[in-house]
Amino acid sequence: MAEQSAPSELMRLKRAHKRGHYDMDTIYSVLDATFICHIGYVVDDQPLVVPTAYIREGDTVYIHGSSASRMLRALANGASMAFTVSIVDALVLARSGFEHSINSRSVMAVGTGFEVTDAEHKYNLLVEFVDKVAPGRGKDVRGPSEQEMKATKVIGLKLDNASAKIHTDAVTDEPEDLDIPVWAGVVPMGMDAQAPIRDKDLSPEIEEPSYLSLCPIHRNRT
Amino acid sequence: MAEQSAPSELMRLKRAHKRGHYDMDTIYSVLDATFICHIGYVVDDQPLVVPTAYIREGDTVYIHGSSASRMLRALANGASMAFTVSIVDALVLARSGFEHSINSRSVMAVGTGFEVTDAEHKYNLLVEFVDKVAPGRGKDVRGPSEQEMKATKVIGLKLDNASAKIHTDAVTDEPEDLDIPVWAGVVPMGMDAQAPIRDKDLSPEIEEPSYLSLCPIHRNRT
Repeated sequence: MAEQSAPSELMRLKRAHKRGHYDMDTIYSVLDATFICHIGYVVDDQPLVVPTAYIREGDTVYIHGSSASRMLRALANGASMAFTVSIVDALVLARSGFEHSINSRSVMAVGTGFEVTDAEHKYNLLVEFVDKVAPGRGKDVRGPSEQEMKATKVIGLKLDNASAKIHTDAVTDEPEDLDIPVWAGVVPMGMDAQAPIRDKDLSPEIEEPSYLSLCPIHRNRT
Repeated sequence: MAEQSAPSELMRLKRAHKRGHYDMDTIYSVLDATFICHIGYVVDDQPLVVPTAYIREGDTVYIHGSSASRMLRALANGASMAFTVSIVDALVLARSGFEHSINSRSVMAVGTGFEVTDAEHKYNLLVEFVDKVAPGRGKDVRGPSEQEMKATKVIGLKLDNASAKIHTDAVTDEPEDLDIPVWAGVVPMGMDAQAPIRDKDLSPEIEEPSYLSLCPIHRNRT
């Protein structure tokens, strides 16, 4: 397979380059498999990293939060940002400590964000944040009021400069380690949901919607 | 309860300050509940965020990786860094989109890292990386050789400037929204492990060690 072309030198995986993927289908498939990202930005030369929910629409990812948020105000003002998503898929337990690893999927993107100011687009994106974790719920709940829209900032980042990194390894031990009498193998891991807990004020006749059984959105356990 | 004192203005939660915790017991309890952090650092004014495994020893967290890693070399050279850990505990599904939230625990720390150069300390820390995900396994596997030690950098960060943020909310809707006929409640989530998959070269008489049933190290499902 020909080596894929990275969108920039910064995004090109320097080591383990076979794990690097730069095609948008692979990047989207990782982004659509979970809902928490980690945002990096800089305040007075100090990098900060903040976890937050995100959605993807086409070639752009969006985050949201309080209009008073230091991070969202900085990003709206054009601060350079990093956007990283990671999913742990398995522990790889080898016969040597050195060969232990974690199978995972991740996406890293960098660039400059923009604030979504178009009211209709912003409204639809806020509904989509609900739909991402509970598909179909967005239309069932009360949508954002004018005041709530004002209290919320939505920041977009185009995925012009992004890469994915995918580890799906079996145990690889040195030949001389194969006889060490220790269990070796892969322990798959994933995020999962427990039984939903009804709100105490919920009327007894309201049943659980079917999308609750779709939670969580990423099931690694197939 | 008196407001806790933050280690710095940067770490003080500006909004939702009741969620902020600055005592080390709380910070340690979050850090000991999972094993992946996200590291922020800056290359040519561009913040980058990279997921990686970590361990905690006392008041210091450690990450490790290839000695050739751009990130680890930058951190060893004194680059400012951010260290963030986040755990998703539940989706909070309210009757309005606005009141949807995610219950979570997170720790953010900032500072300047240091490279661990003492060979014995470095060796013990590398063993601890194995023990963190599979308690007791560190002594069963082959420890790092001299060459593997050279190929690996370990970076520490003292938790002098850290804070924890803990969301454990029930649904809070506006009184006028309580009659909206939509399911509302909390969907607990957590990371969990599937059945281990034996390495193809594993001798049949080697049984699964008991620590495999301790994986994953964070079970939110009690």
